[in-house]
This record gives sequence, C-alpha cells and structure tokens, in this order.
Amino acid sequence: MATINSNYLKLKAGYLFPEIARRVQAFAAANPDANIIRLGIGDVTEPLPLACREAMIKAVEEMGDRSSFKGYGPEQGYAWLREKIAVHDFQARGCEISADEIFISDGSKCDTGNILDIFGDNNSIAVTDPVYPVYVDTNVMAGHTGEANDRGEYEGLIYLPITAENNFTAQIPAEKVDLIYLCFPNNPTGATATKEHLTAWVNYARANGSIIFFDAAYEAFITDASLPHSIYEIEGARQCAIEFRSFSKNAGFTGTRCALTVVPQSLTAKAADGSDVQLWKLWNRRQSTKFNGVSYIVQRGAEAVYSPEGQAQVQELVKFYLQNATIIREKLTAAGLEVHGGVNAPYVWVKTPQGLSSWDFFDKLLHTCNVVGTPGSGFGAAGEGYFRLSAFNSRANVEAAMERIISKFPG
Amino acid sequence: MATINSNYLKLKAGYLFPEIARRVQAFAAANPDANIIRLGIGDVTEPLPLACREAMIKAVEEMGDRSSFKGYGPEQGYAWLREKIAVHDFQARGCEISADEIFISDGSKCDTGNILDIFGDNNSIAVTDPVYPVYVDTNVMAGHTGEANDRGEYEGLIYLPITAENNFTAQIPAEKVDLIYLCFPNNPTGATATKEHLTAWVNYARANGSIIFFDAAYEAFITDASLPHSIYEIEGARQCAIEFRSFSKNAGFTGTRCALTVVPQSLTAKAADGSDVQLWKLWNRRQSTKFNGVSYIVQRGAEAVYSPEGQAQVQELVKFYLQNATIIREKLTAAGLEVHGGVNAPYVWVKTPQGLSSWDFFDKLLHTCNVVGTPGSGFGAAGEGYFRLSAFNSRANVEAAMERIISKFPG
Repeated sequence: MATINSNYLKLKAGYLFPEIARRVQAFAAANPDANIIRLGIGDVTEPLPLACREAMIKAVEEMGDRSSFKGYGPEQGYAWLREKIAVHDFQARGCEISADEIFISDGSKCDTGNILDIFGDNNSIAVTDPVYPVYVDTNVMAGHTGEANDRGEYEGLIYLPITAENNFTAQIPAEKVDLIYLCFPNNPTGATATKEHLTAWVNYARANGSIIFFDAAYEAFITDASLPHSIYEIEGARQCAIEFRSFSKNAGFTGTRCALTVVPQSLTAKAADGSDVQLWKLWNRRQSTKFNGVSYIVQRGAEAVYSPEGQAQVQELVKFYLQNATIIREKLTAAGLEVHGGVNAPYVWVKTPQGLSSWDFFDKLLHTCNVVGTPGSGFGAAGEGYFRLSAFNSRANVEAAMERIISKFPG
Repeated sequence: MATINSNYLKLKAGYLFPEIARRVQAFAAANPDANIIRLGIGDVTEPLPLACREAMIKAVEEMGDRSSFKGYGPEQGYAWLREKIAVHDFQARGCEISADEIFISDGSKCDTGNILDIFGDNNSIAVTDPVYPVYVDTNVMAGHTGEANDRGEYEGLIYLPITAENNFTAQIPAEKVDLIYLCFPNNPTGATATKEHLTAWVNYARANGSIIFFDAAYEAFITDASLPHSIYEIEGARQCAIEFRSFSKNAGFTGTRCALTVVPQSLTAKAADGSDVQLWKLWNRRQSTKFNGVSYIVQRGAEAVYSPEGQAQVQELVKFYLQNATIIREKLTAAGLEVHGGVNAPYVWVKTPQGLSSWDFFDKLLHTCNVVGTPGSGFGAAGEGYFRLSAFNSRANVEAAMERIISKFPG
C-alpha cells in the first residue's frame, strides 16, 4: 500500500491565510451588503508599473514570431535579468554578488520552502516568534519537527521570541543553531534590523557554521539610509547567508509572480562524510531538476523594474504604501492604541485593545468594522495579543478603515 | 554545523539536458559557422497561438487599472481555468473529473518532482527504463534510493524495461509496487498505451493499493481514436491515479509556463497509523504552503486554449509537429534505420546505426551532421543503443536534418 508523508498530519488547522479567507467569506455570505476592507493578507492593490506592462506586452508579441519566440529558458533565469539584479540591487550597495549567484523563481514563498530540499534532516532550526508561517510549516512537512503543543509550538524547533521588549529583533541564541530564518523588514511586525544587529547574527553564524535564511522581501520599504537592505552588506555574509527577494511587494507582482534567491558561490555546508559541499551547486541542481524557469513574459516584466521609468514607478508605488502605513500608525496612535512597525515596512503591528485575544479582535473587527486584519497569534504564540494591519490598499480604503476602527475602539 | 542533503551526492553527472547543452555549446564555440539543428530537447519552436497572445495582452492591460488589477490568486489556480479544463479535457471524454480536482501549476516538471512531498519515504517505486530523468532524479534527491551502479541504475528503484520486444509498454510487475510512474504517449520512446494496457495497470494498482503517476504531457498528439488521452478514461483510475498535464507541448507554452495536476478527491493512501488519508487534502495543503499560484497573465493565456479560436490554433500546431514526426519516420525508415514512435507522439525513437553507443552517435551526429538529438542511454540503461529525435522544429530544419543524416548514415 502506498503511504503518505505523515508529517503533514502534524500541521495545525489550515495555513493562516486560507483560514482568514474562510472566515471572511462566511461573513460576507451572511452580510452581502457589508463593505469589507481587507488589510489582512499583504497583497498589493495598485496597478502594475507601466514600464512592466509595456515590457510584458512586447514580450507577448515576440512570442508571436518564430524568430523571436522563446521556448524553455534557463532554469536559473535569463542572464539579462540576473545581471541587472546583481548590479542594481547588490553591487550598487557594495555587495559582492554576481549574476550567476542569483536564481530567478516564481515566488519567495516557493523558495523559502524549497530551500530545505538541499539541507540535511538533522539540522537544528531556529525561527522567530511571531514568524511568517511558511518557514515553520515547511519544516513540519519535511519532518524536521515533532508534534505541536497547545500553544502551536512544534517540538524540535527553536523559537526566538521577538517582542516589544527586544524591539522585535531576536536575541542571538546562547545555544548552537544550524539554520536560522531572519526576515527584515519583518513580516509580521514591521521591525527592522540595524547593521550592528545583522553583524551579530553573521558573526554568530560564522562561529557556529550556521546558515542564515534572510528574507528581504520588504527591503524596498526601507527609507532610513542607515539600515541594510541586504545581508550581504555585512562582512562575512557570503560565507553564511542565503537571501530571498521578491518583485511582489516593490513592483506589485503578487499576481504576476517573480522572485529571486541569492546563493553565494562561497557558501558551504557539511556532507554526511564531513566534507564541505558548495550549496550553490546543490541549489543549481535542485532548480535544474525540479523547476523549469519563470515565464519569459514575466521575466521581461521584472527586467523593466530596472529601467529609469520602472525605477521611478516602483518608487512611487512604495512611497504610496508607506504613506498608507504612516496614516495607519498616526490614526491608531492618536486613538491611544499601541502600534509598532510601519515606518520602514508596509506592516503595522498593533497591540489589541481591551486585552482581547488576537482572533477575538479579528472577529470583532470583521463584524463591527468590516475590516480584515491578521491575528498576531496566527504568526506564533508570542504574537498573541497583537494584530497585523497591512498598508497595501487604496488611500480611501485605508482612511475609511481607520475611521471605522477609531469609532469602535476609542482609545 | 549546517549539513546538506547528502542524497544529492548520489546523482550521476549533470541532468541530461544541461549535459547536452554543454556539449553543443562547446561544439558551437569551436565551430562558429556550423548551422546546428536542434532536435534534442523537446522544445517547441513555432509561435504561440494568437488566441493565447491576445488573452495575455488583455490580461496585462487589466493589470494597469486598479479595478481589474489582480494580486494573489488562488494557489490552486483560478476557477474559470480549472472549470474549462475539467469540462473540455476530462468530462468531454467521459472522465468524472471536477474543477476542484485540478491544480494549476507552472510546469509538469515541477509537479512530477513535488508530488513526492506528500508521500512517505518507505514506498517501493517503479519507473520504466528508459524514462524521463526527472522521475528518477527527484527520488534520488528525496532519499528514496541507494547509490547508482555502473549502468546508472539506482539501488532500491524498480526498473521496468520498455523495449522493442514489449512494444515499449512496460509489463505489469510480478512484485508489489507502491508508486508507479507511467508516461503515455511516452517520453522518450513515443510509444502509446491502449485502453487494455492501462486497464491492466489500474487493476494492478487497485489490487495492490498502489498509486500511478500518469504523465499525459503529450496526450494532444494522439490521433488514433482508440487510444485513451487520460488515465481517468479507465474504470477505477479515480481510486489509484494522479495525472499530470501541460500546456507546453500542445499550445507551445514551454517558455510561457503553465501545467496542471489532477488529484481526485477519491484517492487515498495510508498514514503511519494505518488510517486512510485523502491525497487531495495533502496536495492542496502542499500547494497552499509552498506555492503561490501561476501568473494571472499566463492563466488567461492558458484559458484561451479552450476558446474556439484557441482550439483551432492548437490543433494546427499539433498537426504541424506530427507532420514533422512523419517526415522523420519516413526518411529514416527509407534510409534503412529502425525507427519507433512518432505516430501519436512528437518523439521518434531511433536505433543507432552501425552498433554505435547512444552518446557516440550523439557526438557523431553533432560533429558530422550538426544535428542535435538525445542519447537514449541518457534516459536509462535500456535506452542504450537508441536515440531520440524530437519533431519540435521548423519544417525546413526537420527536412534539412533528415537530408544530412541520410547522407552521412546511408542505410
């Protein structure tokens, strides 16, 4: 008899966002006239930059002529895209990252899950708490954990609490950890990491032979010039870090799909026989065997992000969402709520009022204000009593949502 | 110290197609004037159907207006695409497959690899020999095999030889096998399976609690009305089969990227505790957690395949490549070569002349005819002495390649 991967049975309930979608759908079905404003899932709402659209239309047209038609592309992505990313996103910031260290993919969610394919099953793994659920769930599915306890914490994972007390940046663990997930600007808390903080992590990783999975999906939202955009701005990171980036949140590609993962050629980890193996080679083999590259049309769209027009349009988009974040911060602060994040990040992390639990506040907000957010506890036990609001929406919706919240939850 | 997945070290050399690419590149660099004709990798060459291009341009334009902008779509694919596939590709052929059993993805290569995520590590696994290398390599990477022997066969896998003697359709094994990969029309041999042959497999699978992974990427090339396009045309297949399909070869989407996997709700396998678990639920969870859906733009392109114009254009494309296959078959047969396949399939499986090994013939063909094919031995030990020619190219290139081969290898 064929058997299943029984690790899947350890997963708690649904993945957070489908669960939210279900509750919202049920409410909407029961209240068809409710004007629901969604500040839950971090999904962009504004038009795709014109430069990207023009490039994609041109690419579709190329597909209509056999002389410019494109079949299978390189699994790693086209060189013209990888080179622009290397120069613009890394070398321009002093990071020694070359084009062949950049792997184009269809999403950071995929990559942060798939990266586990190339690592052993015996690594000790640390995540922050709260955390982007994909990091945890993919480790559960891969059999890297035991069962979850009542707080939703899986046996075998090391949870690093990020709280108001530590400014939402995890303390360096005292113990030895092999794989560490870091995300800055942080999803869900909107916290950022200073160069000093990342340097401490890189030093820790190098001293312990650890690999850092650095999720920089929100780097475009950094406006403070002193904050690093990439972990490769830190000396030594080429020896200990893999970085994930995405076009989803800067250029609005959540429905268009393009991302990238950086695996430096200098990165190694241990084989079972104790030898050092280059991780680039393994990831290259993984992608060549289990992936067939991103749509040519989409890659041309992503390339246009690096044209002068594309750059200006992306900056406008980011500025727009950051202004939304400012409005959320200011309105809720004025109403007496405790808010974090939302300065160099599109997420605002709100302490739930009246001592409500995260899900109780979710339901209350949905039912009384018709506003959807994300319960902090959905991101981990230490997120209990918090709530994430996303700045990804129209200005009118953000302002309306704030008015509704303030009227129902006066400070 | 972080450790790697040491199973990767068992993989032999490069994945077949990158290896071919390297040899061709080296030859082209040394012979810059050579007019190389590529009949190796099964990559389409003709323009994307107009209906698909028009639909994608419209979709890109929708992305430019916030009222029609699309962010994250359902991880499983949009309902309007899944429904058309269910009706057109399955229900119209009498297969009881519903839209919610269809999962849209960015490629069958990804899906045939990723499907292993939801299965246990203790399944016995059968592949044909020769076989599409991804089935084997992804099992090696997942740790389901031991080391490879000199013939490239991995310990622990069950190889079912497909040869001229059994008409390139594997015999039902005497032993019990849990997971079986079948591909019809076959890559690489171009062989097809009758209803009787698939019925025997379905009966075997149901009797043994096995799951069949049925790769139907080339079903559009079936012209013989008696041959099944889907395994779900066979009674009982909903209880034992997962089917993979792609828009790559019918609609020319190799560079555009869209595919689908069918997981019937009725399919179960055993958990560690002996209980039956629905595979649909696991695959749905896998895709929700590790995938973010296919580009909206690309899904609209795929949907256009089902419009009357799209259907006519796809049929033209398929007919064109099938005519190429006929030319390859006829020319090589007339020259005295032994050829198989190429009737209901875009691949022709040629016995190498003069007793040459597959790679020797590859090199000879490249150097003397400047024609690229795929060595049969690259698909498995039983493929030694065979060579795959692909019908995916322009008419002029196919005819020129045949002239060159005939002149250098007269029968």
